[in-house]
Amino acid sequence: MKKHNFSAGPCILPQEVFQKASQAVLDLDNSGLSILEISHRSKAFVEVMDKAQSLALEHLKLPKDEYQVLFLQGGASMQFIMSAFNLMQTKAAYLDTGAWSAKAVKEANLLGKVDVMASSKDKNYNYIPKDYEIPKDVDYFHCTSNNTIFGTQMKHFPKVDAPVVCDMSSDIFSRDIDFSYFDVIYAGAQKNMGPAGATLVAVKKSCLGKVDRKIPSMLDYQVHAAKDSMFNTPPVFSVYVSMLTLEWLKAQGGVKAIEKQNKAKADAMYAEIDRNPLFTGFAAKEDRSMMNATFNLTDESLKDKFNNLLVEAGVNGLNGHRSVGGYRASMYNALPLESVQVVVKAMQELEKQA
Amino acid sequence: MKKHNFSAGPCILPQEVFQKASQAVLDLDNSGLSILEISHRSKAFVEVMDKAQSLALEHLKLPKDEYQVLFLQGGASMQFIMSAFNLMQTKAAYLDTGAWSAKAVKEANLLGKVDVMASSKDKNYNYIPKDYEIPKDVDYFHCTSNNTIFGTQMKHFPKVDAPVVCDMSSDIFSRDIDFSYFDVIYAGAQKNMGPAGATLVAVKKSCLGKVDRKIPSMLDYQVHAAKDSMFNTPPVFSVYVSMLTLEWLKAQGGVKAIEKQNKAKADAMYAEIDRNPLFTGFAAKEDRSMMNATFNLTDESLKDKFNNLLVEAGVNGLNGHRSVGGYRASMYNALPLESVQVVVKAMQELEKQA
Ligand SMILES: Cc1ncc(COP(=O)(O)O)c(C=O)c1O
Ligand SMILES: Cc1ncc(COP(=O)(O)O)c(C=O)c1O
Ligand SMILES: [Mg+2]
Ligand SMILES: [Mg+2]
Ligand SMILES: [Mg+2]
Ligand SMILES: [Mg+2]
Repeated sequence: MKKHNFSAGPCILPQEVFQKASQAVLDLDNSGLSILEISHRSKAFVEVMDKAQSLALEHLKLPKDEYQVLFLQGGASMQFIMSAFNLMQTKAAYLDTGAWSAKAVKEANLLGKVDVMASSKDKNYNYIPKDYEIPKDVDYFHCTSNNTIFGTQMKHFPKVDAPVVCDMSSDIFSRDIDFSYFDVIYAGAQKNMGPAGATLVAVKKSCLGKVDRKIPSMLDYQVHAAKDSMFNTPPVFSVYVSMLTLEWLKAQGGVKAIEKQNKAKADAMYAEIDRNPLFTGFAAKEDRSMMNATFNLTDESLKDKFNNLLVEAGVNGLNGHRSVGGYRASMYNALPLESVQVVVKAMQELEKQA
Repeated sequence: MKKHNFSAGPCILPQEVFQKASQAVLDLDNSGLSILEISHRSKAFVEVMDKAQSLALEHLKLPKDEYQVLFLQGGASMQFIMSAFNLMQTKAAYLDTGAWSAKAVKEANLLGKVDVMASSKDKNYNYIPKDYEIPKDVDYFHCTSNNTIFGTQMKHFPKVDAPVVCDMSSDIFSRDIDFSYFDVIYAGAQKNMGPAGATLVAVKKSCLGKVDRKIPSMLDYQVHAAKDSMFNTPPVFSVYVSMLTLEWLKAQGGVKAIEKQNKAKADAMYAEIDRNPLFTGFAAKEDRSMMNATFNLTDESLKDKFNNLLVEAGVNGLNGHRSVGGYRASMYNALPLESVQVVVKAMQELEKQA
């Protein structure tokens, strides 16, 4: 039975992407070669890389002459230190909205002074801090647009003079915002873009080359930019599947169209969480994430009963992260509304049975 | 038509691995989920990671209590700086046997003093230097066991008191040597192990934790070791396919058995290079690589004719690297002897036609 996959990442991708990727592992476009055995310098793969990069820029509505898209390895975690290597001269401002923000702070601390503007750690990160002001003299401001673990999402971004670096791992390509506000956007592929193993970085060229330190080649955005993400062997298959997913997104009508679908899914989910007396939402309402809905049972003794209902319905990956407990419905771009309805039905069934 | 794939990496993998990987992209072991959408924390993937790690140790005959196997991202190029981050206190000894060695030297230079023991750059890296002695007071000795571009391979390793770090990207799992001589072995997956996007590191635990510097988490072997390569999201699919390839290797009889096959392929290839007056080998005979045979035409005007013969025969990826020119036959573990025979036949056909 095909599962309803709410996994927080790696996560569901479009079914037609699975089909195409599976075929390419056997034979890429009737080339007689698997996507896994072709050279990254081959014409076929250079085209894949180009297409993936230009689709990413297109979806983010970023001008090609100002921004460069890179497909790197290492995950978003590598970007915590890599972004600091490239932009930190003396000090930077960070917003602490969750476990991932906190890890970004920790790594950047190795290379300069980190000023944490505000933190929602006092309430186990169940909200987004809003009253802070970013000093003019920082090298950059770093934030996390969507907090995967806690289910909060930034709906507004502060006025800043410095470059803005954003960890968009769990909500990139999911909503129509002004991406040109950001100078560096990074995201592990394994939510809205593709399989684990590729990391997207969209970087404004004008903010690079301003630090004095010597940067190791593999951690230097300019090195990768100069070689168009081919400084060393890229994660070929993950880039290929990312390209397929970005093509799928385009066929869906792009970010604007998918945002509508994402809103419909999130609305259905949160409506039931609020309506159903057996469930309670974790995140502050105004900061709720459209990607990850976190919620708990009001009566823990119903846990086994609810889990059984979920298993029967073929629901996978709804467990909450250990630091929040309860449940987390990750509703990334490729998750159909139907899957949300299946969970809502299980919640209603629990209410009937309880 | 299925190609005879001599690509230098990414490169041919076993056909049955392509089949299994293709199926898993649709549905992993009848789980109702694609290998691309499962959580890296799922039981299914934790088992894959465990199996891949223990197979790697088994093939290298390294004791589990002394060595830890990591599956990381970033490629061998990231290991140039990562190994130095973890082992360089003040100075290290490097052997310069090719373009990749030289890049390793360049990166390590950022973190300490690099003494180049010997270099074969004087003859465009067509041999392995042998007369050098490694000082006792270095933090480690770094070498490249197989020089992918130039087609040379270390047949003997020097006596060293310091820990030995080895870039084994292009000959790991291909020959039966005493791997316990090494303290850190690293290799990009994309030759003998799997698809691009995973990097194998086998590290002797006792050589870690001896430098004073603060190491960024993602570049710290101890951080990854403590989390068993799950500090952050690993490159799930590349690790899975690596596991399949290591299983295949075991079914072939392991490293000892594959070495025999590799020797047969290399012998057939070099015999024809030497016999055929139209071709000449690039590397010094005693240092010839069993993995990458580099050779040139004695008469450049035959180039188009030979290329046509190769195309007709369905041969892919035989072009030499631009720094050597001519041809490079990469004969990794999964390449069948039959493919070598096809190239040999084309070389003989050229001789007839010329
Ligand atoms: C917001 C955010 N940042 C960073 C990460 C870490 O990503 P990776 O595992 O690719 O390093 C995650 C992982 O889920 C995440 O959700
Ligand atoms: C011996 C050797 N070292 C290092 C590398 C670089 O590997 P990567 O592209 O994975 O960084 C290669 C690539 O072919 C190689 O052959
Ligand atoms: Mg978080
Ligand atoms: Mg409620
Ligand atoms: Mg080389
Ligand atoms: Mg000859």
